[in-house]
Amino acid sequence: MRDVAIIGVGMGQWGELWEKSLRDIFVEAALLAIDDAGVDHIDSMYIGCMSSGLFVGQEHLASMLSDYLGRKPIPAAHVESACASGGLAVRQGFIDVASGMSDIVLVGGVEKMTDVGGDEATYALGTAADQEWEGYNGITFPGLYAMIARRHMHLYGTTRQQLAQVAVKNHQNGSKNPLAQYPMKVTLEQVMNSTMVADPLRILDCSPITDGAAALILCPLEKAKALSKKRPVKIIGTGHATDSIALHHRNDLAAVEGTRIAGEKAFKMAGLAPKDIQLAEVHDCFTIAEICVIEALGFAEKGKGGPATESGMTALGGKIPVNTSGGLKSKGHPVGATGVAQVVEIVKQLRGEAGERQVKNARRGLTQNMGGSGGSNIVHIMEVV
Amino acid sequence: MRDVAIIGVGMGQWGELWEKSLRDIFVEAALLAIDDAGVDHIDSMYIGCMSSGLFVGQEHLASMLSDYLGRKPIPAAHVESACASGGLAVRQGFIDVASGMSDIVLVGGVEKMTDVGGDEATYALGTAADQEWEGYNGITFPGLYAMIARRHMHLYGTTRQQLAQVAVKNHQNGSKNPLAQYPMKVTLEQVMNSTMVADPLRILDCSPITDGAAALILCPLEKAKALSKKRPVKIIGTGHATDSIALHHRNDLAAVEGTRIAGEKAFKMAGLAPKDIQLAEVHDCFTIAEICVIEALGFAEKGKGGPATESGMTALGGKIPVNTSGGLKSKGHPVGATGVAQVVEIVKQLRGEAGERQVKNARRGLTQNMGGSGGSNIVHIMEVV
Repeated sequence: MRDVAIIGVGMGQWGELWEKSLRDIFVEAALLAIDDAGVDHIDSMYIGCMSSGLFVGQEHLASMLSDYLGRKPIPAAHVESACASGGLAVRQGFIDVASGMSDIVLVGGVEKMTDVGGDEATYALGTAADQEWEGYNGITFPGLYAMIARRHMHLYGTTRQQLAQVAVKNHQNGSKNPLAQYPMKVTLEQVMNSTMVADPLRILDCSPITDGAAALILCPLEKAKALSKKRPVKIIGTGHATDSIALHHRNDLAAVEGTRIAGEKAFKMAGLAPKDIQLAEVHDCFTIAEICVIEALGFAEKGKGGPATESGMTALGGKIPVNTSGGLKSKGHPVGATGVAQVVEIVKQLRGEAGERQVKNARRGLTQNMGGSGGSNIVHIMEVV
Repeated sequence: MRDVAIIGVGMGQWGELWEKSLRDIFVEAALLAIDDAGVDHIDSMYIGCMSSGLFVGQEHLASMLSDYLGRKPIPAAHVESACASGGLAVRQGFIDVASGMSDIVLVGGVEKMTDVGGDEATYALGTAADQEWEGYNGITFPGLYAMIARRHMHLYGTTRQQLAQVAVKNHQNGSKNPLAQYPMKVTLEQVMNSTMVADPLRILDCSPITDGAAALILCPLEKAKALSKKRPVKIIGTGHATDSIALHHRNDLAAVEGTRIAGEKAFKMAGLAPKDIQLAEVHDCFTIAEICVIEALGFAEKGKGGPATESGMTALGGKIPVNTSGGLKSKGHPVGATGVAQVVEIVKQLRGEAGERQVKNARRGLTQNMGGSGGSNIVHIMEVV
């Protein structure tokens, strides 16, 4: 397999983009990535999107987006793994370049979620759960993650304040990200007094509904310097693991086992351990998710994700800053775009282009993207060359 | 890149499978393929499915199907390219094995289309067209292919009888396929007098709505003999091309330019020409489609697909039998499964296991799978080793 580098990244403003269509926001991010890399063509495309069918009544994105980017007849593939669709697109693009099939690959993630009403969006997101056993019996994702939170609190004594601290930290980071949907800072009191959604999760524990896109340009590492003036960021580890789609089939409700396995695969491929990583972007769809994920990845001991967050370990300036972009909580969560945008943030940080939220002397970063309640899990580790 | 072989194939009965769910029909085909190959594990999975979101309210197939096949935590990816989703899954599985990332890969295709009513199925299929420019203005796929047919008739003198002959031939073949949804034979008169759908296309010019699945096991060619007792079928060419998603953006309505490009790529990779192929499975979603496709692939001259069909060139016993399985017309068209089932048929033929519809002395076969009105196009060429 060939070594693979990222030589371009692109991302537009995220939010409720009612004046733009799905194809518009994808093309905007893709052109930014192409311009950032400085390449004059692309060989193939991978698009992560969870459900353009349910959100905007459009499937067949491979054809539509290569067409609207002016890139037909190149091969283009749409991949889906619920909220991990973006991470899956990164992985499939990596495999394409590593195999020798393509040299310059565009990886995009996109979701247009606000063209439907709240009930329809909740239904569409619910299709990431096991519909026959979970969805049709009435549960939605806040309820599933609330059960995970309750179990974590029961087993480990995780507190309501510790959950809230994830939101406080990520909004603090997001306030330094001009592309974030909700860049306002929030206090512990505001989170803990916000509207109840599914006990113990309140509205400020939940990531929002977002329109947005993000894109990357990948190429063989050996060609990176000839193709682009940007400092290449090498993908040194990739891990992908599935778990039971239904939460009730898991052995341990308070752990994301698939993320542990995907993380171990990525660390093994990179020949590294968690201590070798300087920052991470992880899947904080709900505050409890970030706590479970930092435990699964080995940044915190099992059951200690809450106290670790409270201690400032994952804050900017801490031992391992997590979600410097603002995370899904503050930056927004256009589900198919999230996994690609996580990589955009790591590349910007590793290149020293993260402005006010820059992590000093960052050489290696990690992304963790998750579908449903942890049914699919994708981890990448990157190193600036 | 490593050479890739197919060592197992599986497909259950296709039809209106009201007593089974999507997960059931996928698992049935996957177990048949695993059993056929005789492997004791798989390393990763690729699933082609067009729109389980709209047809059964379930996304996140990667997690669900690896779970229900008892294969978690292996990496699993769902890929979508409308009616070419199955072909795309084959291609992504090929790249995965060729890259060295995985050794034993399960490629599956599945669609469960009859759990919704006819109007909803028509809407779901319509999301393969450009919704903003085509779908929301009222056109559906029979209308799009009717315009292609009218243009082909105008330019080349293609006749109503020639269109009907595609259906007659494919139902004749399908009558020899015990897994086909509509194995009845039809006459020219029956096709030409059947209910009008979109002039000149009648109901017997159209492929049906189908529930079904199909699956393959891929592995590196060099490991095929150690892994399986089955005679390996090597994938010697793969080609993938996109075209404008909207029909009105094409330069030539009466040609499938993306299929021509994908075919040329696959032939170039294989170092072969159309004359070197003994049989093909192509995307006859409507009778006119098969005529355009055999021209695009070079089996017939441009504009001569109608007379070539009428002459018996593409019939069993002809120079290049096309759709010996019955094609989409008679075997059925569960959209995400179709591209995988095409490969199942070619493998059975090349192994000499096609029963009454066996093509004698077949050494090399081709599959062509197409999304929408030709917006995505995937061609594979296979050779028995």
